[in-house]
Amino acid sequence: MRVDGIPYRTIWLAQDGWSVEIIDQTRLPHRFEIVRLTTLAEAAHAIKAMLVRGAPLIGATAAYGICLAARADASDSALAEAAKALVATRPTAINLQWAVDDMLGRLSPLPPGERLATAYRRAAEIADDDVATCRGIGTHGARLIEAAHQRSGKTVNVLTHCNAGWLATVDWGTALAPVYTAHDAGVPIHVWVDETRPRNQGASLTAWELGRHGVPHTVIADNAGGLLMQKGEVDLCIVGTDRTTRTGDVCNKIGTYLKALAAHDNAVPFYVALPHSTIDWTLEAGADIPIEMRSAEEVTHMTGATAEGGLATIRVTPEGSAASNPAFDVTPARLVTGLITERGVCKASRDGLLSLYPERAP
Amino acid sequence: MRVDGIPYRTIWLAQDGWSVEIIDQTRLPHRFEIVRLTTLAEAAHAIKAMLVRGAPLIGATAAYGICLAARADASDSALAEAAKALVATRPTAINLQWAVDDMLGRLSPLPPGERLATAYRRAAEIADDDVATCRGIGTHGARLIEAAHQRSGKTVNVLTHCNAGWLATVDWGTALAPVYTAHDAGVPIHVWVDETRPRNQGASLTAWELGRHGVPHTVIADNAGGLLMQKGEVDLCIVGTDRTTRTGDVCNKIGTYLKALAAHDNAVPFYVALPHSTIDWTLEAGADIPIEMRSAEEVTHMTGATAEGGLATIRVTPEGSAASNPAFDVTPARLVTGLITERGVCKASRDGLLSLYPERAP
Repeated sequence: MRVDGIPYRTIWLAQDGWSVEIIDQTRLPHRFEIVRLTTLAEAAHAIKAMLVRGAPLIGATAAYGICLAARADASDSALAEAAKALVATRPTAINLQWAVDDMLGRLSPLPPGERLATAYRRAAEIADDDVATCRGIGTHGARLIEAAHQRSGKTVNVLTHCNAGWLATVDWGTALAPVYTAHDAGVPIHVWVDETRPRNQGASLTAWELGRHGVPHTVIADNAGGLLMQKGEVDLCIVGTDRTTRTGDVCNKIGTYLKALAAHDNAVPFYVALPHSTIDWTLEAGADIPIEMRSAEEVTHMTGATAEGGLATIRVTPEGSAASNPAFDVTPARLVTGLITERGVCKASRDGLLSLYPERAP
Repeated sequence: MRVDGIPYRTIWLAQDGWSVEIIDQTRLPHRFEIVRLTTLAEAAHAIKAMLVRGAPLIGATAAYGICLAARADASDSALAEAAKALVATRPTAINLQWAVDDMLGRLSPLPPGERLATAYRRAAEIADDDVATCRGIGTHGARLIEAAHQRSGKTVNVLTHCNAGWLATVDWGTALAPVYTAHDAGVPIHVWVDETRPRNQGASLTAWELGRHGVPHTVIADNAGGLLMQKGEVDLCIVGTDRTTRTGDVCNKIGTYLKALAAHDNAVPFYVALPHSTIDWTLEAGADIPIEMRSAEEVTHMTGATAEGGLATIRVTPEGSAASNPAFDVTPARLVTGLITERGVCKASRDGLLSLYPERAP
């Protein structure tokens, strides 16, 4: 997507043809800084320290990390070491393991001298495949937004939670791909951006990328969405997901469930956008998904820009008060109007998912 | 309640016998500062700038504001002007209108020269009445907590939103009065404290006052309550209210509605604690309550303590991103398990309210 007129992806090959450049997402929205990755260690650090985040982008970064490792030493043992180092950075990220396995599976049969070119070609394919997947989600989801516009003749108000935009993928995003597609096609659209406490991904990342691309948007406290839906100020909700079960239960950023309840209570359509890779065909019920507990400090402290232009971290709670920080919740399928995938829109149910992915039928 | 072992109310007559002292709640939890009010303008500012907040405390402050106005000029026209200035500070707060009307109703029949003493006497009565009312809420509500403890034999987990503690009243609080009463009676209790964005009244005020009184508590992002209820980690919710209609619809801090939806979806009892003064017998439906819109800056900026011990304000959103800040939402009576008033616990319905307040029957 565009940053003040210039098209960007979240990861790309540098002008030198071998090093890799990324946007340092830990500095957004206050600093827009490009970081150059030249070694396996730098790629691993970028994933671990969350300069890049979002399952698809983590996968693409890991693929390029294998390229950088192969550039230094393309032997079997060196690549095995590199794979181990990359997978250790975010042990629960499924796309990371998948991308590393895919790369090694393609490189291992080749003589070491032929591996480097194949590695770069395959890493580029992984990135391009993600872009194509997100474009597909955008095309299918944009029809829902266009239909809402045709019904009302007015600006379509979309509410989203967390960041499932192009910054979480290689380009386009998942939940925001329909927004960008509709916006670029001239459909009048406005996005309510949930701040998304405690890590503020909405306030910092979603607001930033929408603003830079020129999409009208308004940041709101996570508490506000229910009232907006009561008042008829939300036409549809679109969120992303970290994992969706085969029955359509949706695990996503903490607080998603509350918005789904409010949407259901006010007959506002609630859609979840997802690439095929986040469907967990082995899981029946969302209640079985383990919930990651993160640091209490994400609740008690916050970082932002000072009036003087610097960055500062402040504590918002009293000293001595404990805090708890579960990172995800599960929205049951009964609250989800539909799933938007690269293949189309389906019901959040076993039958709905199998209608788009018949090859998964048992 | 106690602060560092010393019993405090939130508003009291200063040693000089005429000026009024309050706790500056905008400085909590990082600073505990007493502010002296000497004029109507200072009282109005204290309400508008939220040095004092919470419907009952706003009412008491407005009553003393009339005293301070009468001290300068006790004529009919001056008191009418004072009433207008006070009521304009917080349009949603019904106690404000009530307290001002009550004061003027008692002062108007008197000759101006006799008004001042009556004003101070009546303001003190309003404050004392609030303490008695909150004690009553505490007694009735504590029975619900004790019953939950007797059923489970375990620590009772109460979730609350915003601050409806002693800081929101003259003493004891509304939603927290049952918590303090049960805690002081030895019932094991733990409170999940919603941070309550964007003003963070939970993280800053509720956590502070519970901590000072020694009540175990944990601060959570507003997004987390749904998951906690799904996981069975909440035994009951108790919140306050700024205004309740005669049919039991509850207007309270933005985000309350989302917690009520989650409680309903997970069969967790959802109680609203309220003094009689916050019941609006003229209003049928909560949807008719006007919602106060507050400054976008409360969403985009945040103030807290730095590691060096100072206070700093940071911006958390990108420059150029708009923000919207509705301050309240309405929880329909159908989602409310019961109303806890100084007279007892009743259903959130016309019949329920009339069972406790039969004198209000048409």
